[in-house]
Amino acid sequence: MADYQAPLKDMNFLLYDVFSMEAMWQSMPTLSEHVDRETAQAILQECAKIAEQEIAPLSRQGDEIGVSFNDGKVTTAPGYKEAFKTYADGGWTGLGGEPDFGGMGMPKVITALHEEMLCSADIAFSLYPGLTAGAGLSIAKHATDELKERYLTRLYAGDWMATMCLTEPHSGTDLGLIYTKAIPEDDGSFAITGTKIFITAGEHDITDNIVHLVLAKLPGAPAGPRGISLFLVPKYQVNEDESLGDFNNVTCGSIEHKMGIHASATCVMNFDSSKGYLVGEENKGLACMFTMMNFERIGVGIQGIGAAERSYQNALEYAKDRLQGRSLSGAKYPEKAADPIIVHGDVRRMLLNMKALTEGSRALSTYISMTLDMATYGEGELKAKGESLSALMTPLAKAFFTDLGLDNTVAGQQVLGGHGYIREWGQEQLVRDVRIAQIYEGTNGIQAMDLLARKVAASKGELMQTFINEVNTYIEQTSADNMQEFIQPLKDANIDLAELTQHILKAAQGNIEELGTSANDYLHVFGYTAMAFVWAKMAESALAKASSSDEFYESKIKTARYYFARLLPRRLSLAASIKAGCDTLFDIDESLF
Amino acid sequence: MADYQAPLKDMNFLLYDVFSMEAMWQSMPTLSEHVDRETAQAILQECAKIAEQEIAPLSRQGDEIGVSFNDGKVTTAPGYKEAFKTYADGGWTGLGGEPDFGGMGMPKVITALHEEMLCSADIAFSLYPGLTAGAGLSIAKHATDELKERYLTRLYAGDWMATMCLTEPHSGTDLGLIYTKAIPEDDGSFAITGTKIFITAGEHDITDNIVHLVLAKLPGAPAGPRGISLFLVPKYQVNEDESLGDFNNVTCGSIEHKMGIHASATCVMNFDSSKGYLVGEENKGLACMFTMMNFERIGVGIQGIGAAERSYQNALEYAKDRLQGRSLSGAKYPEKAADPIIVHGDVRRMLLNMKALTEGSRALSTYISMTLDMATYGEGELKAKGESLSALMTPLAKAFFTDLGLDNTVAGQQVLGGHGYIREWGQEQLVRDVRIAQIYEGTNGIQAMDLLARKVAASKGELMQTFINEVNTYIEQTSADNMQEFIQPLKDANIDLAELTQHILKAAQGNIEELGTSANDYLHVFGYTAMAFVWAKMAESALAKASSSDEFYESKIKTARYYFARLLPRRLSLAASIKAGCDTLFDIDESLF
Repeated sequence: MADYQAPLKDMNFLLYDVFSMEAMWQSMPTLSEHVDRETAQAILQECAKIAEQEIAPLSRQGDEIGVSFNDGKVTTAPGYKEAFKTYADGGWTGLGGEPDFGGMGMPKVITALHEEMLCSADIAFSLYPGLTAGAGLSIAKHATDELKERYLTRLYAGDWMATMCLTEPHSGTDLGLIYTKAIPEDDGSFAITGTKIFITAGEHDITDNIVHLVLAKLPGAPAGPRGISLFLVPKYQVNEDESLGDFNNVTCGSIEHKMGIHASATCVMNFDSSKGYLVGEENKGLACMFTMMNFERIGVGIQGIGAAERSYQNALEYAKDRLQGRSLSGAKYPEKAADPIIVHGDVRRMLLNMKALTEGSRALSTYISMTLDMATYGEGELKAKGESLSALMTPLAKAFFTDLGLDNTVAGQQVLGGHGYIREWGQEQLVRDVRIAQIYEGTNGIQAMDLLARKVAASKGELMQTFINEVNTYIEQTSADNMQEFIQPLKDANIDLAELTQHILKAAQGNIEELGTSANDYLHVFGYTAMAFVWAKMAESALAKASSSDEFYESKIKTARYYFARLLPRRLSLAASIKAGCDTLFDIDESLF
Repeated sequence: MADYQAPLKDMNFLLYDVFSMEAMWQSMPTLSEHVDRETAQAILQECAKIAEQEIAPLSRQGDEIGVSFNDGKVTTAPGYKEAFKTYADGGWTGLGGEPDFGGMGMPKVITALHEEMLCSADIAFSLYPGLTAGAGLSIAKHATDELKERYLTRLYAGDWMATMCLTEPHSGTDLGLIYTKAIPEDDGSFAITGTKIFITAGEHDITDNIVHLVLAKLPGAPAGPRGISLFLVPKYQVNEDESLGDFNNVTCGSIEHKMGIHASATCVMNFDSSKGYLVGEENKGLACMFTMMNFERIGVGIQGIGAAERSYQNALEYAKDRLQGRSLSGAKYPEKAADPIIVHGDVRRMLLNMKALTEGSRALSTYISMTLDMATYGEGELKAKGESLSALMTPLAKAFFTDLGLDNTVAGQQVLGGHGYIREWGQEQLVRDVRIAQIYEGTNGIQAMDLLARKVAASKGELMQTFINEVNTYIEQTSADNMQEFIQPLKDANIDLAELTQHILKAAQGNIEELGTSANDYLHVFGYTAMAFVWAKMAESALAKASSSDEFYESKIKTARYYFARLLPRRLSLAASIKAGCDTLFDIDESLF
């Protein structure tokens, strides 16, 4: 496998050329206290080093050896504990954390790019700090200061890790069905009892303590999702002097054997009258858990980008090196026994698909991260726009980037031919590792329904109109002749997206099932259109530098042209499928399947 | 995982209702000697039993344990040797073989359906008899009677297995680059020396002897693909009395560790002055190997169908059983804690995609198999048409069915959610096992170029016109009112396919690279159009039985409607992408990737 090289230049291009992040940060005072261009560049540079040099080398061995389970103990693969210590010592565990409790207060646009590098290096490793950071967000937002002092500071410091315990055997997507119980104790704590499955990093040997965020039901709580509360349940109690106290009856029953991410411990966790502390209000646990959902969801989307970037780097190296056949238009390297396969049109197609979709995803992810920062740190109109756009676009990020992540790792594998199927080349691991990202943290089908039903339809189209207006404003402002090759097709796509949205909303008034059957295709139409928007913006920024002799900008412009010519048309079939309506999906009884 | 149930009813529907195979067989005397409806039905019924009861149960264990390599010896997973013996004892190893040498002489339409059942049961197992049958075709067609008596009879009897040794480390797609040498010996045999990689079933403990078909170069042979000869090289020499003689210096250097098909031995094979026998003429080895290519290619395509069928059966069982959430249009099972997920539009979309594409693939595969039978056993016009259509459509079968095979196993995994990612459920194995089928036996990119460049463009569009005329004839003959909902969109698709073909041929006159960049998308446009043709035929046959109370026919008609409404539109984006031309793929230097 090619050595991973973090795409720092592309990241800085996005931050400072395409999205003018310096001005954006300046407009948000609570953020500009902590971040400026110099700080952010240094952070990403250091992150690239640790990803390239410390984490990426663990990945193959982590896949081969995986985690092991013995008598309740989980042992991680060689090197993971040490790498995490290096990572924590570097301060990375508190990168996006609240400064009041020892975090670095970096915006999502920076933590997101840091996450991408970790995922390119090794998705399995990235999950340990990733889950901890996610749980940290819920604690920071909803827990008492006492809990934050005791637990959050230690999570930010990298002393301990955290988990999110939601799923039960019969209850995944539908969390209203959970059984885990919380019984109030006299000291204000709760005794938590129940079994949770698919718990990432539920048990391991990397840190001394593990802080579980657990969804459970109080006695007499309403049925369904409105009767669920959130609790913080440590593996070991913590004494007043911050030392570890009694074992809290949190045990690991087994670990799962999975298609990929073998180095990530996926645990069955049993809580047996374990002492827990309420986070947020009673019966509002789902809301407390979901405040961090948008941050988490985009993080899962970024797994798709990280894997795709790695896949592209591997496939590109192979395609330049592997000699087979001759170019259709005549030998390009007559001195060699054959041409490198990058001369072949179909190989170029696969490589450019990967390049255009991965760079497009990174740009769109940065844009969406920016909307999350606007919602979190902005004020007034900026905040309102950030809230609207991030609510609309985070389900897109999760599902679209992970669907493309699978496509792009499969494409990379195809470029490698037989070598793509052999474990030793590492390419097939990317396919196995990224596949889970379409499933966990809400399947991509659920994301699509969140987008279309809960966001677009529930707002009567208003949230989508916010995005369409953003694109229209950009189109109106972009009158330069050399941009019209991008602006015209973007305009068409944007008009069609608006029209398709109205079409579905109207159809759903006749039959609500139209939402369910359209959701997946609609999400992808939105994705390709939004990606056209950021590709136009990248082309514009690159054209502004085209007089420089730096090939980076020429490559951007040409990749943008490829995207508009060959990939944006994907929206056409999806729209046609939606417009065929839902009748053929429901006019067939279950017994006929 | 759901127990596999062979779709015998669908198979018989295709053979006798949709494609009127009795009349077809009657029109080919050499075939009708051996096969009739009763025989064929009995064969498929018995095959279903062995696939369901003997082979399917091996698959999970075969994946977990895999083959092992120790000091040159390859040990197969538990049960494989015994299952192969049962299979051979049942006469299955000679199913499609020449009756003169002990084969059963069954047509491809029957052996193809038999292959599908083996692949649904366990792709890894299917490869052992599959490779043997493929090599048997080359031997039957090109070897001397002496070689056939000595080797082919034993392959048909299931005493021994065979391999195909083509690939070398630096030479996969481009076989002109091979190094393996053949030196003539005084006794008329040849001393073969070289290394071959990715050799399926190259070494194992299932049979006592292994017969290798090896591509090698004679001294002074022309460079490139026209200097390659084909040799039969047994692992052990065979004495005059048919007993095994001396070891022939054919050794296994190592086995590959792969993403899937763990129970299939993928070997590095070393030949060291091993005695070989020429098959066919000197320097015409590639042609001899490729006479069986069309039979083999469709066999690999069928791996995609087999895996997709299994995936659908698993996903359907899960979707009817798993309770999560409520239908958008109100609870469908209010007495249960939640509705089964089959009520959800997006789950129905995934299931119907799998159902429509898998049944459509099976129908198209049967049609293409029929064209192979016409080419092999037919005479005059029938033979000519069979030759044209099978040449055109076998690359389609290989690439289209395996691309859909991956899509459909990934879709099944998505229906299972987290359980789809866990090994214990078996669903993720289907994804890993089927993935190789897009790569081996010529990558799908190579198949697409074979279709567009070697078949369509080289015949100036004439081969494609043969297919288009077939569809037009069917359209003209099908005037019933109740068929117009299928005939009209089929007509549109067929007209568009003809127009797209001319568009590409014209564009390629300007720039030959248009062929390479269009090939993959064109193959899929052809695939969706051809599938519309067989779905229309299935709908017609089902409508003819619609008065029966058998739900099978109602299901067919409704699935056909789904295909036309929601899947046939996929061709639109592909055509738009092709029409955007190849400029954006070649106006970007290698250094800009």
